[in-house]
Amino acid sequence: MEFPKENFSGWYNEVVEAAGLVDKRYPVKGMHVWRPYGWKIMGNIDSYFRKIFTEYGHDEVNFPLLVPETEFKKEAEHIRGFEDEVFWVTHGGLDPLDVKLILRPTSETAMYPMFSLWIRSHADLPLKVFQIVNIFRYETKQTRTFIRMREVHFFEAHTVHRTYDEAEEQIQEDIEIWKKIAKKLALPYRIVKKADWDKFPGAVYSLGVETIMPSGRTLQIATFHQYGQNFSRPYGIRYLKEDGTHEYAHQTTFGMSERLLGAIVGIHGDDRGLILPPEIAPIQVVIVPIVGSKKERVLEESKVLYQEIKDSGFNVHLDDRDNYTPGYKFYDWELKGVPLRLEIGPRDLENNQVVLVRRDTGEKISVKREEYLDMISKLLEDIQKNLLSRAEAEMNDKIKYMESIEDAKSFSGVASVNWCGSEECGRLIEEKTDKKIIGSPLDEHRPGRCVICGKETNILAFVAKPY
Amino acid sequence: MEFPKENFSGWYNEVVEAAGLVDKRYPVKGMHVWRPYGWKIMGNIDSYFRKIFTEYGHDEVNFPLLVPETEFKKEAEHIRGFEDEVFWVTHGGLDPLDVKLILRPTSETAMYPMFSLWIRSHADLPLKVFQIVNIFRYETKQTRTFIRMREVHFFEAHTVHRTYDEAEEQIQEDIEIWKKIAKKLALPYRIVKKADWDKFPGAVYSLGVETIMPSGRTLQIATFHQYGQNFSRPYGIRYLKEDGTHEYAHQTTFGMSERLLGAIVGIHGDDRGLILPPEIAPIQVVIVPIVGSKKERVLEESKVLYQEIKDSGFNVHLDDRDNYTPGYKFYDWELKGVPLRLEIGPRDLENNQVVLVRRDTGEKISVKREEYLDMISKLLEDIQKNLLSRAEAEMNDKIKYMESIEDAKSFSGVASVNWCGSEECGRLIEEKTDKKIIGSPLDEHRPGRCVICGKETNILAFVAKPY
Repeated sequence: MEFPKENFSGWYNEVVEAAGLVDKRYPVKGMHVWRPYGWKIMGNIDSYFRKIFTEYGHDEVNFPLLVPETEFKKEAEHIRGFEDEVFWVTHGGLDPLDVKLILRPTSETAMYPMFSLWIRSHADLPLKVFQIVNIFRYETKQTRTFIRMREVHFFEAHTVHRTYDEAEEQIQEDIEIWKKIAKKLALPYRIVKKADWDKFPGAVYSLGVETIMPSGRTLQIATFHQYGQNFSRPYGIRYLKEDGTHEYAHQTTFGMSERLLGAIVGIHGDDRGLILPPEIAPIQVVIVPIVGSKKERVLEESKVLYQEIKDSGFNVHLDDRDNYTPGYKFYDWELKGVPLRLEIGPRDLENNQVVLVRRDTGEKISVKREEYLDMISKLLEDIQKNLLSRAEAEMNDKIKYMESIEDAKSFSGVASVNWCGSEECGRLIEEKTDKKIIGSPLDEHRPGRCVICGKETNILAFVAKPY
Repeated sequence: MEFPKENFSGWYNEVVEAAGLVDKRYPVKGMHVWRPYGWKIMGNIDSYFRKIFTEYGHDEVNFPLLVPETEFKKEAEHIRGFEDEVFWVTHGGLDPLDVKLILRPTSETAMYPMFSLWIRSHADLPLKVFQIVNIFRYETKQTRTFIRMREVHFFEAHTVHRTYDEAEEQIQEDIEIWKKIAKKLALPYRIVKKADWDKFPGAVYSLGVETIMPSGRTLQIATFHQYGQNFSRPYGIRYLKEDGTHEYAHQTTFGMSERLLGAIVGIHGDDRGLILPPEIAPIQVVIVPIVGSKKERVLEESKVLYQEIKDSGFNVHLDDRDNYTPGYKFYDWELKGVPLRLEIGPRDLENNQVVLVRRDTGEKISVKREEYLDMISKLLEDIQKNLLSRAEAEMNDKIKYMESIEDAKSFSGVASVNWCGSEECGRLIEEKTDKKIIGSPLDEHRPGRCVICGKETNILAFVAKPY
C-alpha cells in the first residue's frame, strides 16, 4: 500500500492514522486519541518548548481548566470573539451550578485575575510564564487531525511588562525564540501582521506565523499578540511605579499548538508516509537485521550496534521481530518517518560494514564499521538541513507576487498583492478572490498600486485559503 | 515567622502557599493554580513515572477529556459510583449538545470503547498503557490542596490481559513498581485490601496504598484495581483465542495523583516548612554566599562552586540576590524544603572549605574543598534515607493493635482490630468507632476474635479517619 500525496487531503487524513499518531474513532467529533508514537513526537516538541522558554526566563505554571462565566465576560471583545465557541459546564453531579463554567479556549481569563494579585510593584515585572495544556473550542467547521480540533494540545506564554515598548521588545524576543523552534522542526514560514478585523479578540495587534501546506492552503502555526492595556484594565493588573503612582501593565502572549505536528506531517511527508526531522524523532535510527543464513551472528552484531548507537546519544530502535520480513519492516518504519535505517546482513559482517538508508532521499550508503557512528551523526544533520531547505524552496514556489485580483483568485498558493491597507479594500480583496487576507508580511514591502483602489502603496497582503 | 506543625491542618494549609507550591485564590472552589515551584516538583514526579512505567513495558497515550453520556453509562456500578460527582458539559457555544459530555473523573469510559477496537487477538495482549492528565470531580466535601480537589493531577495505568491470573500477575508487578516509587518519594505506606462496599465502582476488588498524615488521619495515595471482566463485557473488549474461540479480556488499573505531593508535604515537613526528598527536589543544593568584607571574591568563588556542582549532575541554585540578607535566604530556602544549603564566606575561602547544612537535621558540616562534592553526594543520599526511615518509624507508631472497640474509637491513629470479615460486623465497627475501615492489611494477620461478634479470625481491619 502506498499513500499518494497528490491527493493531499486524503493522504493527510490517512497517514496520521496509518503512522500510528492518532486514532480518530473516538466517539466525540473533533477529539482524537493520541497513540504512543504520536504522543512521543508531541512530547519531544513540548520538551524543547520547556527548555527554550526556561532559557529565556519563563517559568512554567499550570492553571485550572475551568473559568467562571463572570471572569470570562470581563473583556468585551474577547467574549464576543469566543462566546460562540466555548463549551459550557452547567451541572456538577445532578445539581445546576450557581456560576456556569467554561472550558478554557485559551487562558487569558483564567490567568489575569491571578496576575492582578501577583503583581504589586515594578519589581514584580516583567512576569513571564507559560503553560502546556489542552484547550477546547466548539468548532462548527469540518474538523481535521491536529489542524482544526475541538480539543487541542496547546502552548501559551503570557508576559506582563511595565510599558508598551517593553511589551514590544518581548515580541521581538518571541520572534527570536520562534526562529529556533522553526529550525528544530524544519518548518518554513512567513511572519505576517494580521488585518485589524482578523486580530485576536482583545489584542492591539496580532502577528501570525504562517506556513503553506502542499494543498496550497496556509496554516497558522504560531501567534504573537500585543495586548497593550486591553486586558490589564478590565482585570485590574496594576503596578506601583517608582514615582509612587499606579499604572496598568502591558501584556503579550505567544501561542502554539499541535498544528505544528500537522505542519510537519503535511510538509515533509511523501508517498511512503511521514518523514520526521531528526531533532524531534522518537526513533532517529532503526536497525533492521537481514539475517540471511547467519541469523545468530547478525542478531548478535545488531545488538552490539544498538548499544553503540545508544551510547553515542542517538534515539535508536532494534527491530528484531521474528515474524516479519525485512521488506515489511522497511515499509513500516518508512511510514513512521524514521530518518535513518541501518541494515546489516551476512555480507556486511564479512565486509566489516553497515548500510545506512536516508528516509528523505532514499539514498543508500555503505560505510565501514570504524566510521559508521560519525556517518550517522553527519547524515542526521544533513537530513535535518535538507528537510528544511527543500521545504523552504517549496514554500517560496507557492508565494507569487501578482498585480491583478483575477490572478490572485485563480492561483492555488499564496498571492502577494499590493494593498492600500484600508479595511474597505481589504474586504473587497477577500470578496473578489473568495480567499482571505492572511496578513501583511512583516519584512517584505514592494511599491505598487492597491489592486482595488489603485492607490500607491508598498504594503503587501498575502491572499490565500487558510486552514 | 514560623509554621507550628502541631496544628497540622493549619500548618498544611499555610505551607502549601507559603512555599510557593500553589495559589489557592483561584475563583473556582477546589481548583488551585500550580505555581512554578510546585509544578516543577510535580513534573519531577511525573518524569519518574514516565521512566519507570516505560521500563515495565507501558506505552504513554493521551485520551480526550470529554466522555459522551452514552459511553459513561455502560457499566452500571461505575455510573452509580460517579454520577453524583461528575461535571457535565451541556452546551457548545449557545447551542445545547445532542449528547451531553462529562469531564473524565477517571478514564475507563473514555478508553475502553477504543480498547474494544484495538484488541482483536491474543497477540494484541497484554495491552499496557498509561496517561498523565487532569481529572475532575464535583467534590461536595471540604476541599484541601492536593488531597481533595475538584481538578486533580492524575496518573492512570490501564492494562488488558487474556486471563484473570495474568491480571493478578500485573497487580503483583504494580506493587513492585509502587515499592520503587515509594522509595523515590521517601513515603512509608501499608497496602490494604478495601472492604467490598468500599471498592472502586465496577472492580472485582481494590487495593489501596495508605499512608498516615501527622494528624493521624490516613491518606490513600495509590490504588490497584482488579476489574476481571466487569468492564470488558459491557465495552465488548474481546480477543480471539488460539483455539479459535472469542473470550472477554481481563483488566486492571493503577492510579496515583497529586496526593503524593500532599503526602510529601505533610509527612516530611516541619515548623520551618517543607523538606523535600533529594530525589525529586527541583533544587537539591542552594548556595548562599555570605560575602562579608570580600564580596567580589566570595561571589566569584560561588560561581565556581555552582558550576562544579552542576557539572557533577546535581540540581543546584546560586542565590546571589543582592537585596536580601543571608538570614532571609536561609529562611526562604528552608521554607521551600531544599535538602542541602551550602554556605561560603571569607573565612571559608581562607580555610579552603565550605559549610554544608542539612535541611532534615539542621546539622552543619565544614568540609574541605577537595572533598565537598563527594560530601554533597553522600549527604543527599543520607537525607533521602533518613527522611524515609524516620517517616516509617512515625507511621509505625501510629498503627496500634487493639482488642476493644472503645480503644479503637479513642485512638488518634490507625487502630488494627480483628474482624470476622462480614459486612455486618464491618459496618458496626465503623458505626461504633465513628471511623472507617480503610481496609485489611495485605501482609499482616493476627489470630484473635472479631471485635464485634467474637468469632475467631486472623483477619485485621485498619480502622481510622481517612482524608
